[in-house]
Amino acid sequence: MNHESFLSRAAAGMTQSAIRRMGGILATGRDIVSFAPGYPAPDTFAWDDFRAIAAELLASRDGSILQYGPTRGYRPLLEVIAGLQRGRGIDTAIEDLLVTTGSQQGLDLVARVLIDPGDVILVELPTYVGAISAFRNAQATMIGVPQEQDGIDLDALDRTFARLAADGRRVKFLYVVPNFQNPTGLLIGLDKRRRLLEWAERRDVLVVEDDPYRDLYFEDSASEAEVRPIKADDRSGRVIYLSSFSKTLAPGYRVAWIAAAPPLAAKLEMAKQAEDLLTGSLDQRVVYEACKRGVLDRQVPTLRRHYAHKRDVMQDALKRELGDLATWPRPSGGFFLWLTLPASVNADIMLPRAIEEGVIYVAGEAFYVNGEGQNTLRLSFSAPTPERIETGVSRLARALRAELAASATAAGAARQGAP
Amino acid sequence: MNHESFLSRAAAGMTQSAIRRMGGILATGRDIVSFAPGYPAPDTFAWDDFRAIAAELLASRDGSILQYGPTRGYRPLLEVIAGLQRGRGIDTAIEDLLVTTGSQQGLDLVARVLIDPGDVILVELPTYVGAISAFRNAQATMIGVPQEQDGIDLDALDRTFARLAADGRRVKFLYVVPNFQNPTGLLIGLDKRRRLLEWAERRDVLVVEDDPYRDLYFEDSASEAEVRPIKADDRSGRVIYLSSFSKTLAPGYRVAWIAAAPPLAAKLEMAKQAEDLLTGSLDQRVVYEACKRGVLDRQVPTLRRHYAHKRDVMQDALKRELGDLATWPRPSGGFFLWLTLPASVNADIMLPRAIEEGVIYVAGEAFYVNGEGQNTLRLSFSAPTPERIETGVSRLARALRAELAASATAAGAARQGAP
Repeated sequence: MNHESFLSRAAAGMTQSAIRRMGGILATGRDIVSFAPGYPAPDTFAWDDFRAIAAELLASRDGSILQYGPTRGYRPLLEVIAGLQRGRGIDTAIEDLLVTTGSQQGLDLVARVLIDPGDVILVELPTYVGAISAFRNAQATMIGVPQEQDGIDLDALDRTFARLAADGRRVKFLYVVPNFQNPTGLLIGLDKRRRLLEWAERRDVLVVEDDPYRDLYFEDSASEAEVRPIKADDRSGRVIYLSSFSKTLAPGYRVAWIAAAPPLAAKLEMAKQAEDLLTGSLDQRVVYEACKRGVLDRQVPTLRRHYAHKRDVMQDALKRELGDLATWPRPSGGFFLWLTLPASVNADIMLPRAIEEGVIYVAGEAFYVNGEGQNTLRLSFSAPTPERIETGVSRLARALRAELAASATAAGAARQGAP
Repeated sequence: MNHESFLSRAAAGMTQSAIRRMGGILATGRDIVSFAPGYPAPDTFAWDDFRAIAAELLASRDGSILQYGPTRGYRPLLEVIAGLQRGRGIDTAIEDLLVTTGSQQGLDLVARVLIDPGDVILVELPTYVGAISAFRNAQATMIGVPQEQDGIDLDALDRTFARLAADGRRVKFLYVVPNFQNPTGLLIGLDKRRRLLEWAERRDVLVVEDDPYRDLYFEDSASEAEVRPIKADDRSGRVIYLSSFSKTLAPGYRVAWIAAAPPLAAKLEMAKQAEDLLTGSLDQRVVYEACKRGVLDRQVPTLRRHYAHKRDVMQDALKRELGDLATWPRPSGGFFLWLTLPASVNADIMLPRAIEEGVIYVAGEAFYVNGEGQNTLRLSFSAPTPERIETGVSRLARALRAELAASATAAGAARQGAP
């Protein structure tokens, strides 16, 4: 039978994520250094604490630990999250909060609650591919805005808005990742954050602020003051704020959160009711206990040092191996390093050669909503060991030099063959 | 600021679930017997096994246990699920399967992948309220088909289809819960299952078969042969089959699955990628170990006896207390008992009186897509102890008798006041 004819328009437009396709390559079991997915380093996880917490919870035989529970989330966890938000400068009521099954669900809920097919939303160029998927599945029209060294270009943003408004198109929201953006690692400057919020007020646009990497600033190059969320200065409920325990505790628990003005939070809750009823009960309890017992507070400074060191290792290796061929903004936090290659190189076409050399990355094009970025790629330094980072960068350099040599040969042959 | 103006059409139509609203009442801490949500009995959970499994997994420090993982699910768990499916008579390849974050996510994914706004789907009258929410959020037009003692009325089904076809409307799928339906507890007869599938083939309609209660047949009144899924006889990939570990292991793990023809399964996977990336890694591992170590096999016969006993207790209490006022089909499995009250009673209006007496249920109207069912209600016998079931039914009887007395007085007053 023909199943295609039963698909919704949204399903017809769905594609496999560029990042998650890489999983198949890794599953082959070959010796491949993976710079592709933004996985946290599992050796940093608080294994012993998690084991002790799980054992105690399950020994209690408190039914609620494995039972259905409220869609909003486990109430004491919501209170802990409100406290975390206050620590970030965001005044948060329980009515603003919803636990989500990873921040990916938060993005999906935002898409469902705000986007009708054809609605215009603005995103950074490039931007997080998981957000692109969630917005695409809601059939949004995504328009990209370029970035500068200190994040999104506000002049270009307003020009884009004005052009759309002149065409009679309304912009529902702007999606931004202000801290150590996925994929570029860029940080939006503090003054720019303030002006961005003023712009959103003036133009009556919502801001969706995705902030999974906030805690992971590297103390040699960024300070806590610099990662102050846009939401912290939001007085009118214009900013929807997402964050997560995936990068600081562990992604396998799938515990993240979203904070929004109560009328929006109520709709996000209803959308979540129909989407998965609730986030895992035991997972929420473990995360709650990990916060209450100080595990999160102990983890975070260690993680900053851990990932800063790996950033250094990758950057030094890149300078040594590819300093003449690639450029990148120096990341002051997060998991990612964003490479721009010579204009003649297509990172997606180069990928089979890289796999042959034993290294994978995500080709940059997947992060662009406008088809650009062919000569860019995202490297994640978070999961591999320093030694593997060195090995992977050497392999990447070999692949790139071979790619350039092959295209020079091809270009030479083309010239010779020309009349 | 006005947030309403930013909402999608889907969000504007979203409402709070009737079942989950009850959570708020329970949270007040009053002495209330809850017959409202279909919660499994937490004293039946395999606490010791879960504790041992979690401790072993976390002691292993195997990174993948708390890491991101494949959207389809943990591969060994998929293989276990394929085996469970074979035990139900369903020939299943790994390519057919996807782990979902509860069956609620399965329903939501089905809705996203198949439904465009305004598409027609058919559902039983009454049907599972969580499915109604998922389909409503995708802006489906839901048309109800009445049920008989042995499940959906096939003549009414075909008449409904023909009427829609004559109006030029295409029906995308029929949603059914063939085993111990939520909310009625009805079982579709075996012969009717066969004819239902033939009908779907003839009319070129997909079947979405939701089967969370299959293992919970009560051996005094139903046999394993009678719960054979419709999917077991599907040769063309017409049936999308959903089932879950929530009712047999524990709902807090949020581990369920969906089986569909590979072209549909591929789209369901893409939809899940954007919805939550993956179901909890540790949760999947615990469920896998619980299956592999025989915990599930040991649990199920115990659960059958446990819930059959509670069904008996509730039924005896209802006969004694309400035998003259209410009728219900005797459930031969599952969690629910479906009461029809005198036509003059509105179960939703009666609810405050029931709460005052100290008992809650779900008013039946929420399960009807056509606004019927005012004099029906759903009782869940799964979670309360036998003693609490007795207490709750007595309280329900008091509430109903008071409601009838009040409406008789009101009717008398109305008659006296008439000219």
